[in-house]
Amino acid sequence: MSDHFSFKVLSSDDIARQGIVTTLHGQFQTPAFMPVGTSGAVKAMTAEDLEGCGAEIILGNTYHLYLRPGEKLIKEKGGLARFCAWNKPTITDSGGFQLFSMQDLSRISDEGVTFKSHHDGSAHFFYAEKVIQVQRDIGADIIMSFDQCVSFPESKEEAANAARRTYDWAKKGKESFDRAEKENQTGIALFGIIQGSAFKDLRTLSAEQIISLDFSGNAIGGLAVGESKEEMEEMTAHTIQFMPHNLPRYLMGVGYPEDILMAVSYGIDMFDCVLPTRNARTGMVFTSEGPLVFRNAEYSDDDRPLDSNCDCRVCRRYSRAYIRHLYNQREITALVLATYHSTYFFQSLMRQIRKAIEGKRFRRFRKDFLERYEKNRDAAT
Amino acid sequence: MSDHFSFKVLSSDDIARQGIVTTLHGQFQTPAFMPVGTSGAVKAMTAEDLEGCGAEIILGNTYHLYLRPGEKLIKEKGGLARFCAWNKPTITDSGGFQLFSMQDLSRISDEGVTFKSHHDGSAHFFYAEKVIQVQRDIGADIIMSFDQCVSFPESKEEAANAARRTYDWAKKGKESFDRAEKENQTGIALFGIIQGSAFKDLRTLSAEQIISLDFSGNAIGGLAVGESKEEMEEMTAHTIQFMPHNLPRYLMGVGYPEDILMAVSYGIDMFDCVLPTRNARTGMVFTSEGPLVFRNAEYSDDDRPLDSNCDCRVCRRYSRAYIRHLYNQREITALVLATYHSTYFFQSLMRQIRKAIEGKRFRRFRKDFLERYEKNRDAAT
Repeated sequence: MSDHFSFKVLSSDDIARQGIVTTLHGQFQTPAFMPVGTSGAVKAMTAEDLEGCGAEIILGNTYHLYLRPGEKLIKEKGGLARFCAWNKPTITDSGGFQLFSMQDLSRISDEGVTFKSHHDGSAHFFYAEKVIQVQRDIGADIIMSFDQCVSFPESKEEAANAARRTYDWAKKGKESFDRAEKENQTGIALFGIIQGSAFKDLRTLSAEQIISLDFSGNAIGGLAVGESKEEMEEMTAHTIQFMPHNLPRYLMGVGYPEDILMAVSYGIDMFDCVLPTRNARTGMVFTSEGPLVFRNAEYSDDDRPLDSNCDCRVCRRYSRAYIRHLYNQREITALVLATYHSTYFFQSLMRQIRKAIEGKRFRRFRKDFLERYEKNRDAAT
Repeated sequence: MSDHFSFKVLSSDDIARQGIVTTLHGQFQTPAFMPVGTSGAVKAMTAEDLEGCGAEIILGNTYHLYLRPGEKLIKEKGGLARFCAWNKPTITDSGGFQLFSMQDLSRISDEGVTFKSHHDGSAHFFYAEKVIQVQRDIGADIIMSFDQCVSFPESKEEAANAARRTYDWAKKGKESFDRAEKENQTGIALFGIIQGSAFKDLRTLSAEQIISLDFSGNAIGGLAVGESKEEMEEMTAHTIQFMPHNLPRYLMGVGYPEDILMAVSYGIDMFDCVLPTRNARTGMVFTSEGPLVFRNAEYSDDDRPLDSNCDCRVCRRYSRAYIRHLYNQREITALVLATYHSTYFFQSLMRQIRKAIEGKRFRRFRKDFLERYEKNRDAAT
C-alpha cells in the first residue's frame, strides 16, 4: 500500500462510519460524494464553484482523458489535480464502465477491450496493464483496477465470465502497478472493483478474489445499472460483509440521495454519480423536499429559491422564475446555477450524514431527511 | 428629466471625461462598458461573476425580454434588476437594432415595425409608444427611444428616411413617456438615439432633432454596423459636437478596445457590445497583448494564463492548455472561464481609462495600451 495514502475511521454509528482519507493532494472526509469531472471539469462548474460547494475530491473519466487531451499531456502538466487547477484529491475510474456504456463501439475478450474513439473512430485497446499505465500517467490520487461491468439483467454465465475477467485483470493490473510503484513511487493508491451482477454467490466469489489482492481500497461495481432499489440494497448489504473495515469502501455510480443513505447505513464511504450535474442540465435539481423539475411552466411565476431550506449562493439569490426563464431561453447561466445548487445539495447531504454519524444519530437523520424528501420524489422522478 | 437620475462629470482630460451616473438602483462610473445580458443574463455569467468583474450596469434586450418572459412578468417581479437578482443599474435597448438585424422577419413603415417572433413565428408590432410601454414595464433605469438603424453602406435616401422616422418616433415616444411618468413616476430615464448612417449632414440634422427633444441622455446609434474604423471615428467626432456636455453620451454597440479608446477621447461616456462575451464562446478572448484565439492547437501545451498581465480569478488559476482542452471538449466550463476573463478585461480597461482621465494622462494611457495590444491584434482578429 502507498505510504502517502491512508484511511482512518473517526467514528461509527451502528455500522455506518465517518472517517478521513489522506492522499498526496490532501484529505477528504467520508462518507464522500465525488462530483464527476468527465474531461477534467465538472460540467458547468469551475474549481471555485466546487470549493464553494465543499467538494473535497473529484472524479475524472480515464476513457475521456486518455482520448483528450491524452494522459501524456496531463502527466507533463503535473497530473490531473494540477492540470485542472483543482490541486486537491482526485480519482479516476477504470474506463470499464464507459466501455460497457458504448457497446456498439467496443469488443470485449479475455485479453481486454478494443474500442473506437467516439471522437474520430480511431481504434484503441485497453487491457489491465494499459489501464494502470494510463491512470498512473493521469496521476489521480486514487485509481481503479480495470473491470468488466455487465448490463442488468444479465445471464449468470455472462456475469460469471465478467467477474472472472475482472479478477484476472485485477491480478495483472495489481502486479503491474506494484512493479511500477517499486520503480517509480508516485504515492497513488489502487482500488479493486468487485463485480458479480445481482448474483449473491458471484458477488461472494468476486469479493473474496478482489479482497485477496490487497488493494488500498475496494469498490462495488456493476450496480446502479438498472436493477431495482431492493436489489441494489441486497447486493450492497451482501458484498460489504467481505470488504475490510480498515479500508475505504466505494459504491460506484451511486446515486440518488436515498441510495446514498441506504449504502452509508451499511458502511460505504465513497460515492460518485453524474445525477446531480446531468439532471441539472436537463432541468431538474435535487432539493430537501425532493427533486424539482424547475423547467416546468408551473414555476414561471415562482419567487421561491430552488430549495427553500438551502443556504447555497444560488438559493440565497435567485428565484425559480428567473432560473426557469433562463433555462427555457437555453442560457448557459441556467445550467451553471442549477448545477451549482445540486452539487451543493449533495455535498451538504454528505456533511449532514457525517455529522449525524459523529453524533450517533444517523438512523434518525436518515428517517427525517427521507420523510421530507420523499413527499415529492415520486411525482418528479 | 427624472428626479432619480443624474449625471456628473467629475474630471476631464482634454475632451475625455470621467463621471458618475446616479439611477434608482444605484450609481455607475463613466466611461462605462455595459455587458450585454440579452435575456436577463450575460451569457455564461452569474450576477456574482459580473460583480467579480466590477461591472456596474448591464444591458437587457427589449426585443428578447418582450418575447420571453414578457414585460408583464418582469414588471410583476419588481423590474429587470430585481427579476435578475442583479439589484444594480440596468439599461434596455429600444429593440430597433434587433429588428434591423433580422430583416427577413420584420417589415418597417412610418408607423413602426411588424415582426415575427423567432421563437414561434407569432406576429408583433413595435411602434414608438409601444416600445416605451414595454421598456417602462421591464423597468430598467435607462431606456432607449425607438429608432431605425440602417445597414452599411446605405443610400442617402434610405438613411434620410430612417433618420426622419427615428425623429418622428423619438417625439412620439418622448411625449408618451412624459405623459406616463406624469401619471405614474418611475424614476426611469429616457435616452434619445441619433441616426444618419455615415452621412455628416444627416448626422447633423438627426443630432439637432434628437437633442431638441430634451432627453436625459443621448446616444449615437447606427455605427459598428460594417463601416471602417475611420468612418466610425469621423461620425463619432462629428456627431458628438451636438451632444450636450452635461448629459451622458452613449455610443451604441461599440466595441473593440481600440474603438472604445477612440470614442472616449471624444467624450463618450457609455458603451455596450457583445464582443467580449460572444467571442469568448467561440474561442477568442481579449488580452492586454491583443486578442487570443485560445482554441488554437498552438496553446494545447501552454502553461500561461489567458492574459499574463491580468489579475482576474481565471488568470490567477487556469492555464491556456486547460481552458483550450475544455473548449475543444465543448465543456460549458470553458465558456464560463473565457467569458469571465474577457468581461473582466473590458471592465479593467474601463477602470484604467477612468483613472487615466482622472490623472490627466489619458492620451498617454491610450498610446501605451495600444502599443502593447496591437502587437497581436492584426494576427488574431
